[in-house]
Amino acid sequence: MKYIIANWKMNMDTAALEKWLKEFTGLTGGRKFTDKIILAAPFSQIKMVSDHCAANGLFCSTQDISQFGQGAHTGEVGAFQVRQYCQFSIVGHSERAETEDTVLAKRDACLAQGVSPVVCFAQKENWNKYYLPGVFLTWEDPLNISQNGLYRDKDPQEIEETYKYFAQAAPELAMIYGGSVNRQNTTRLAGIPNLGGVLVGNASLDPQHFMDIISAFE
Amino acid sequence: MKYIIANWKMNMDTAALEKWLKEFTGLTGGRKFTDKIILAAPFSQIKMVSDHCAANGLFCSTQDISQFGQGAHTGEVGAFQVRQYCQFSIVGHSERAETEDTVLAKRDACLAQGVSPVVCFAQKENWNKYYLPGVFLTWEDPLNISQNGLYRDKDPQEIEETYKYFAQAAPELAMIYGGSVNRQNTTRLAGIPNLGGVLVGNASLDPQHFMDIISAFE
Repeated sequence: MKYIIANWKMNMDTAALEKWLKEFTGLTGGRKFTDKIILAAPFSQIKMVSDHCAANGLFCSTQDISQFGQGAHTGEVGAFQVRQYCQFSIVGHSERAETEDTVLAKRDACLAQGVSPVVCFAQKENWNKYYLPGVFLTWEDPLNISQNGLYRDKDPQEIEETYKYFAQAAPELAMIYGGSVNRQNTTRLAGIPNLGGVLVGNASLDPQHFMDIISAFE
Repeated sequence: MKYIIANWKMNMDTAALEKWLKEFTGLTGGRKFTDKIILAAPFSQIKMVSDHCAANGLFCSTQDISQFGQGAHTGEVGAFQVRQYCQFSIVGHSERAETEDTVLAKRDACLAQGVSPVVCFAQKENWNKYYLPGVFLTWEDPLNISQNGLYRDKDPQEIEETYKYFAQAAPELAMIYGGSVNRQNTTRLAGIPNLGGVLVGNASLDPQHFMDIISAFE
């Protein structure tokens, strides 16, 4: 069972999200997934996406979370405010350029509210700085992060080598992969035994593209 | 006509917000306000608060906004994603400790999407760095920012002196005031001719307290 996460980033407004959800539902045709399909929504449409997920056997995530508990933090959204809408929260995505302390505080803020943090990190040796029971880790391959839809061609063998490292260092861990995930490289990724799933960025904006990635795992 | 803004900050979840809105409606009793009453909601409950505002003659605001347009900005919420829910967006609140460049980019991101930015600034001489037609300015009095509900006692005469400065420097401008606004100091604030309104923090968490502040202006 893999975790396949659509990180839409800051890309769709309400109408575009409704269209995405409708098209995706058309593609799945009510199919039950063996993997966990997770939609990481913008805060501003989290309830709408959450309702759709609940009705369709999908899971909902935020793309970020406040590192703080309730209080005077203008503009922040706390885990206590979204816990009823999402099961997961992406934490520490590379685009946010956060310090290790901030990422750890966000991770713990999620855990305190029963939201599962999906913690992103870049240097493979650092996985155990971020791991705790209940935490999902995503290795954001620093050499393979797409830039606005331009996927980088990276030798998949390098990715496989890193997963051999994870298999030795953390044999129990299902490490999610993030880095230019697309329909071209997914088949090879799906063959890595200890890969926990994929965090899909730009490719998740197209329901058909996202569905193709899911199909490579199912 | 003043702008009276409830900045709830990161304080209420859905149930608490529903309770607030219900209690506030009970206090207003369907009264029509001559001032603009603006509720600055967390992103995660923006639609719910927006729907309530539309049905009750109130106005909705965000507490922050992304400085960017649509794109790969994981966790950010863009003006294009909330423009259908809010007429206003608080920008550059002191709690966010943002640079001038960031605040200006956020201001312009709002204007580009037809959302009215409520730009906060602390040094009175800096007002014209942030002003443009369509922009609302809030002077966040640096000596009078409350700390988690502990209001500072400041000589209101100092506030009045600063508003004399604004009256000379920017006679057309209705400058909103932010800084430990509460039911004790509101009457005096309401007497300042060129005061454009108030940005209420902690005191806005209590519907009765917020209503008392509104009543001082109406």
